[in-house]
Amino acid sequence: MTAQPTDPAIYVDRLSRIRVAMEEQQIDTLLLSVGHDLPYLSGYPAMPLERLTMLVVPRDGDATMVIPALEAPRVTEQAGVFGLLPWGETEDPTAIVAKLSAGSKRIAVGDQMWARFLVELLPHMRGVEFTRAVDVVGPLRMAKDHAEIAALTAAGAAVDKIAGELQRGEIELIGRTEAQVSAELSRRILLEGHEKVNFAIVAAGENAASPHHHAGSRVIEPNEIVLCDFGGTMAGYCSDTTRCVFTGEVTPDVAEAYAVLHEAQRAGVTAGTVGTTCEDVDRATRKVIDDAGFGDYFIHRTGHGIGMEEHEDPYIVEGNTLPLEAGHAFSVEPGIYVPGKWGMRLEDIVVATPDGPLILNSSDRSLVSVA
Amino acid sequence: MTAQPTDPAIYVDRLSRIRVAMEEQQIDTLLLSVGHDLPYLSGYPAMPLERLTMLVVPRDGDATMVIPALEAPRVTEQAGVFGLLPWGETEDPTAIVAKLSAGSKRIAVGDQMWARFLVELLPHMRGVEFTRAVDVVGPLRMAKDHAEIAALTAAGAAVDKIAGELQRGEIELIGRTEAQVSAELSRRILLEGHEKVNFAIVAAGENAASPHHHAGSRVIEPNEIVLCDFGGTMAGYCSDTTRCVFTGEVTPDVAEAYAVLHEAQRAGVTAGTVGTTCEDVDRATRKVIDDAGFGDYFIHRTGHGIGMEEHEDPYIVEGNTLPLEAGHAFSVEPGIYVPGKWGMRLEDIVVATPDGPLILNSSDRSLVSVA
Repeated sequence: MTAQPTDPAIYVDRLSRIRVAMEEQQIDTLLLSVGHDLPYLSGYPAMPLERLTMLVVPRDGDATMVIPALEAPRVTEQAGVFGLLPWGETEDPTAIVAKLSAGSKRIAVGDQMWARFLVELLPHMRGVEFTRAVDVVGPLRMAKDHAEIAALTAAGAAVDKIAGELQRGEIELIGRTEAQVSAELSRRILLEGHEKVNFAIVAAGENAASPHHHAGSRVIEPNEIVLCDFGGTMAGYCSDTTRCVFTGEVTPDVAEAYAVLHEAQRAGVTAGTVGTTCEDVDRATRKVIDDAGFGDYFIHRTGHGIGMEEHEDPYIVEGNTLPLEAGHAFSVEPGIYVPGKWGMRLEDIVVATPDGPLILNSSDRSLVSVA
Repeated sequence: MTAQPTDPAIYVDRLSRIRVAMEEQQIDTLLLSVGHDLPYLSGYPAMPLERLTMLVVPRDGDATMVIPALEAPRVTEQAGVFGLLPWGETEDPTAIVAKLSAGSKRIAVGDQMWARFLVELLPHMRGVEFTRAVDVVGPLRMAKDHAEIAALTAAGAAVDKIAGELQRGEIELIGRTEAQVSAELSRRILLEGHEKVNFAIVAAGENAASPHHHAGSRVIEPNEIVLCDFGGTMAGYCSDTTRCVFTGEVTPDVAEAYAVLHEAQRAGVTAGTVGTTCEDVDRATRKVIDDAGFGDYFIHRTGHGIGMEEHEDPYIVEGNTLPLEAGHAFSVEPGIYVPGKWGMRLEDIVVATPDGPLILNSSDRSLVSVA
């Protein structure tokens, strides 16, 4: 389902850079299972099931992919990247992983590995210090190469097309439930070439004041705001955009706030240059909203990194002093949420480049009236 | 998306039974995040994202759902079930959970919680013994009540309809790729009322010899076997069925093996009575296949439990001495896989009941020719 690079040289290179980071951080073994670090380093995404798949990467020596025997045919051993170690239905894969990691003092594990497997490993590994694999793999994954930026660009163009359809009134809103519109967005996400829908938030009127609203049975009425935040995975990389439309003539209070939001979002995008810290990008959007008196209604961070994963490093949040580097891809998505009344958010994906911020979304950023 | 019961009494009851199990197993605190134990006990499925949602259940005292502030509006506090504790964007949710669990000596964590959160909890919890929540929640989840069996039955009927379409030749096979047929099965899974596709394995000819084959660019030819194993989640409960069809007149070698497979599957279903151990159900299918000389080609366990999760306890595998109880729902899916030639599997979902095995699938179990 993903368009992972098929050239093993890419994985050999990534693994060698990972090992430098392991050396620097004194990580003896890296354990990757379900999640995105595994396909990033091996080209193979584990099945998210109860049978353990685990790539065991020692700091020195060859990596081994421990894999259920019946899934072994899904993956080809890659010289210089990993060898395959299939396990049978009555074997204990945790014991196999523990043996491969024997003697390790510090072990980094993938974020989305099932906790179950760590719980099962703990008794085999008394005294071992566990850390997050994101510390070693994250910096590499954050800095997207040209192929990755191309994949993010293509995914962004696909959702922009849907945003345009929404803004031209080609997706019926009034009289339909949020859930129906969400289902239609999901269908279009797949039709435009994504292999997977990650989310399709549709929130009308006062529901839009809940940033992660679950699209429900609420019927969309005339003369209200409809917030649509949607994205999927296309060729292994994610899209994510938010646009709001208004089912009628925009009311003055909403128009006033939206102008502030639009300016805040632009300020965040403009701040997304190489060398700027993540928290300074957050502050750039927040300052505009604060200055306009809406500060109490901007209740979340400005954005998140994006790549193989919908949300990944770098997070654009107060306290994150990481300076942006070329290739860092992230969302800029400030919002204003007035409980019981309405909410609004405007989101683009941005890549920091030596030439300044590259914006991957291009649909109309204004609050389009679809009445 | 799920049809979780809305009556809090169900959750109050389930939690009180969980606390009995916690008492028996000397578990001080239960921690549930992403996964199926959480909605089973609270009605709310956490968003599988980097912001932590965690239900903290002390053995005595009230349960607390630690939840990102911007997701708090998705869930309603339930008296007697849990209170809500929203955390803000710059707070550390791990520290909050650690504080709520302070003094615990044994903590059970949900299987699918992200390992990241356990890694972050470990330094707060020196000396704590971690166990799997499945030990306390699993036995309860295994024994399905009437509403759950009804949900599994409805989901089963939905995939049976698709199996019938496949067997009547209404899903074109010859000349299409496995991936195209997989996409069509996926569309039909959604059309029949599932909210989510869990998998749609399509494996033709020699590819069918790989039980977890990833549907790919292989074009389906005349005169070969096509294995289809598909399922989704409908109103929160899963479907799962496997049927093979033959794109031509079935060849004698395949017909002979299929007769064995069919008999083995029937033997497994018949064995699925209350009191029989899981490994004895496994042995029942295996004996038929062994006796016919195909033993080396049956390379996986006989089945898995099914419910809110596609694969859950009880696993029908050698070594599992758990006796089936009324309400246990599981797959019976033996297979015969001859590398390089062909593979076949036949799968139904079965519920153990006081009146004997209740089979939730009813599509034709023979190897239908679709030429």
